[in-house]
Amino acid sequence: MRGFAYDIDTAVVPAGAGRYTGTLTDRWHIGVVPNGGYVLGVALNAIGQTVHHPHPLTASSHYLGPSEAGPVEVQVEVLKEGRSLSTAIARVIQGGRARLTTIASFADLAAQTGPTLLTLDPPALPPPDECVPRRPPTAAVATAFHHVIDFRPSPRTAGWIDAERGQPAQIEGWIRFADGRPPDAQALPMLCDAMPPALFAAMETGWVPTLELTTHVRGVPADGWLAARVATRALMDGLAEEDCELWDSAGRLVAMSRQLARILPRP
Amino acid sequence: MRGFAYDIDTAVVPAGAGRYTGTLTDRWHIGVVPNGGYVLGVALNAIGQTVHHPHPLTASSHYLGPSEAGPVEVQVEVLKEGRSLSTAIARVIQGGRARLTTIASFADLAAQTGPTLLTLDPPALPPPDECVPRRPPTAAVATAFHHVIDFRPSPRTAGWIDAERGQPAQIEGWIRFADGRPPDAQALPMLCDAMPPALFAAMETGWVPTLELTTHVRGVPADGWLAARVATRALMDGLAEEDCELWDSAGRLVAMSRQLARILPRP
Repeated sequence: MRGFAYDIDTAVVPAGAGRYTGTLTDRWHIGVVPNGGYVLGVALNAIGQTVHHPHPLTASSHYLGPSEAGPVEVQVEVLKEGRSLSTAIARVIQGGRARLTTIASFADLAAQTGPTLLTLDPPALPPPDECVPRRPPTAAVATAFHHVIDFRPSPRTAGWIDAERGQPAQIEGWIRFADGRPPDAQALPMLCDAMPPALFAAMETGWVPTLELTTHVRGVPADGWLAARVATRALMDGLAEEDCELWDSAGRLVAMSRQLARILPRP
Repeated sequence: MRGFAYDIDTAVVPAGAGRYTGTLTDRWHIGVVPNGGYVLGVALNAIGQTVHHPHPLTASSHYLGPSEAGPVEVQVEVLKEGRSLSTAIARVIQGGRARLTTIASFADLAAQTGPTLLTLDPPALPPPDECVPRRPPTAAVATAFHHVIDFRPSPRTAGWIDAERGQPAQIEGWIRFADGRPPDAQALPMLCDAMPPALFAAMETGWVPTLELTTHVRGVPADGWLAARVATRALMDGLAEEDCELWDSAGRLVAMSRQLARILPRP
């Protein structure tokens, strides 16, 4: 899938034992810093080149500080390579400082067997063309990210775009790469962090930095749009849990994530 | 809180830079291995002795293999000590092999400020005396754990004890330490992993080993019983998400967790 922005911008090359180098570009910026999911994608790329299992089953990421556009080093330490799982720590380092540390377990999603019992439903969305189209970012949210990620919130959960608040802290919509890159397991953790904060539907906030993000990839997605639901049920004393589900175009749940984020006051 | 089983059995002593030693006892066994939450408690104890923030705000734990009763070493590496957060990796090592690796961020929960918006409700439970009392473990679930943890499922979600299945994959009840140890922030991640698997209410399963467990401690609990809710919404191909909420005796949400576990067939 060379040629797509996400693959170009998350590419890393080996630079010694357990070391990879790459470049964070400014195409994934939210405001003035790279989207945290994008930085995680670089880390997962490095792990994926190191271990023999193909898919990031679960990744727990602690954000230690904002990243920036420019050279990046990823250090990968394999904790275990087993029959069914490979587990590794990746550290994303810029200027000698770790900006993100993730523990991830890779597996072969196609090889999982056992019972299924699913009581979640995909969000009920009108077709993408009847959702709210991308708009040129306003000055308040000037961000390159809108040009690489095509997110179309359902009209029912899009009031925040016009500064209408007071709704439940839930946003639903369709999401895909703007350049037509098909979704894959490697990209799902990034896409779990690609929607606006669910709290936007409920209240005005300032910056919402992620402290910790854990993603579970539950299936290899079919090509096409992903249906997304993000919701916050527990904002307490300025700290918010946010859960995300991604459903593929065949209606299958392919990713779940939960993060803990800090809600900063509006500047 | 010396004298309580949990404090005695999670105690670690410094053994050089970033190293601690302790002993896993057999009092926290589920079947023939220590409960994963207990092993996590030992890891968090070591981090708590290393960093200056008092409470484990978020901990993401990847289980690499079962632990066993006996000597244990915990290696702690501090990733960042900031003003509001301290982040560290702890590795729980036995026989030269890491059994559990956790990344945790510690904070001062009492120092958090900002908005609150909570749309979750605590489980509606009859008083503990009207819930299902502890029973002597059957041969099938012979476990020391029942003697140190007092869990009382609500009658409505206790059918699995009599092998009634087919209910929603949700179990609710009261939980506390059996010896009267008050709950505290340090113990909440363990207590998030102290209930039976929610899937027991829905189907017969074999062993349910945790692959990954992330806990968010959201408040310092008041003394008394904790109300617990565990639920699985997404079991797919033998892999299950399980979410847990713990509410303190004052009705406040004090912990949330999500784990990914493998569902093994019944032997």
